[in-house]
Amino acid sequence: MTLRQVGEEKLLAQLAPRLRQNARIIRGVGDDCAVLKTATRSDWLVLKTDAVVAGVHFPEAAEPQKVGWKAMMRPLSDFAAMSGLPEFALITLAISPAAKLAWVRGLYRGLSAAAARFAVAIVGGETSATRGATVVAVSVSGRVEPNRCIFRDGGKLGDELFVTGSLGGSRAGRHLKFVPRIREARWLTSQFKIHAMMDLSDGLGTDLPRLARASKLGFAIDQNTLPVSKGSSIREAISDGEDYELLFAISPRDCARLKKLWRRKFPRLRLTRIGRLNNKAQSADRHFPSGYAHFRQRR
Amino acid sequence: MTLRQVGEEKLLAQLAPRLRQNARIIRGVGDDCAVLKTATRSDWLVLKTDAVVAGVHFPEAAEPQKVGWKAMMRPLSDFAAMSGLPEFALITLAISPAAKLAWVRGLYRGLSAAAARFAVAIVGGETSATRGATVVAVSVSGRVEPNRCIFRDGGKLGDELFVTGSLGGSRAGRHLKFVPRIREARWLTSQFKIHAMMDLSDGLGTDLPRLARASKLGFAIDQNTLPVSKGSSIREAISDGEDYELLFAISPRDCARLKKLWRRKFPRLRLTRIGRLNNKAQSADRHFPSGYAHFRQRR
Repeated sequence: MTLRQVGEEKLLAQLAPRLRQNARIIRGVGDDCAVLKTATRSDWLVLKTDAVVAGVHFPEAAEPQKVGWKAMMRPLSDFAAMSGLPEFALITLAISPAAKLAWVRGLYRGLSAAAARFAVAIVGGETSATRGATVVAVSVSGRVEPNRCIFRDGGKLGDELFVTGSLGGSRAGRHLKFVPRIREARWLTSQFKIHAMMDLSDGLGTDLPRLARASKLGFAIDQNTLPVSKGSSIREAISDGEDYELLFAISPRDCARLKKLWRRKFPRLRLTRIGRLNNKAQSADRHFPSGYAHFRQRR
Repeated sequence: MTLRQVGEEKLLAQLAPRLRQNARIIRGVGDDCAVLKTATRSDWLVLKTDAVVAGVHFPEAAEPQKVGWKAMMRPLSDFAAMSGLPEFALITLAISPAAKLAWVRGLYRGLSAAAARFAVAIVGGETSATRGATVVAVSVSGRVEPNRCIFRDGGKLGDELFVTGSLGGSRAGRHLKFVPRIREARWLTSQFKIHAMMDLSDGLGTDLPRLARASKLGFAIDQNTLPVSKGSSIREAISDGEDYELLFAISPRDCARLKKLWRRKFPRLRLTRIGRLNNKAQSADRHFPSGYAHFRQRR
């Protein structure tokens, strides 16, 4: 059986149980980041690695600065999802020996600019020759206060679901220059009890069912309220992926205050209530078109 | 100009000064691992990422378990070089959607077995499609006591140079099943004041000049004392690379005690004095054949 037939989610589900657990793992495989207790540290250690591949996550002809920006911002968006604070990054670059030095310099300009935006220090870089497609992997380490770390599985029955920004059409350009919602996530956890949160990387149609499943709940969406990007259809807003917006669940009691304070704090960024968490039996899951599935689509 | 013309070392030297520094970086780009101070932790945070690429670091036909073993053990060998203790690992896999599920399971068996050997927990896995060569990147986070962290640049004039094990011929098979010298490094720093240390990944001919340069010293080698692997020539012992043995510098005052205690502690592992650190003017650097240079060799 090939990976295309299995799909990424089932692949990881197959591999995860074989990994050894230990008492210091708060979260391992299966949430946006790994979250770990350390013996000599009061806050939790947060780790995330992610890669962009030429021809898959960026066009071969993309400007190297933009490739570097995206490669750094993708794992930082996972930090936003947990309300984590990124601190240090390591870069692994697999690239052809025939590649131009100027391209790699451009890549590092993009990586550095993105890291600087969130005061992340690039503290290591490894470069390997490859005869295949360029791969830029970025590993980020950081921290989070235990009482501000938000997982996918904390959603409660009746919670309202919100998304930041607008959805759909990211691949037309935004995916190479987005800014992860770290500032917004940190503000949310400083002001509210957020029950569950994740970042939208594979599309609402794939990611929302993940959050609901992790919380052992179903969900209902009002498709007419979805914050659809200009020029996109509702279907694209659900399925395109690469939005890098936050999806979170919060008690209905907090909604009015959330909307009011948000407008004051982030007047230029939309915050939209898109639905709620309900019982599994009522869920729209089966009728929801899915987002981007790794290995399943040939692009 | 292409990367092949520049070479990895000069490439990193070009990129490093552009990276922002900050007060918490004990070591960034340029040593075996990054070493960092954290606000809420008494010991230092150690980070390392490394990748193996099909057709470069392993033959396409290699058993997946062995590929996984090597992918994990390479960054752990860098932990040994600092006398660090690895704790957590994240895996990034870029692989063709047409790859077999059985191959990925074999890879993870190898990764898990290698991690378990040093009580490292695999806490995250990301998988990306690629149309090119398979890339397995492993990022490891861990810790080290500030008084036991050994850098490359601490060598002192007159220090004796030692290597563990034997050198050369690793690519005939050992490179897929070696065991990093973490136990040995931890013992060394518990018993002795080690001045400088690194792991031999690119060959003594490349790595020793790096250690000497970092320490602003030269070196003298007695080629006849080199611990050459069975079936290898002296030249191969110097140039093959992928030995994953320790090279370290220690005061001549400690040599007799080191040899005696080592024989008792590690009776089955050679420890060989191969030369000493001297003034730059006397150095053998210019006449030393070099080891494996990334991007320079076409294999």
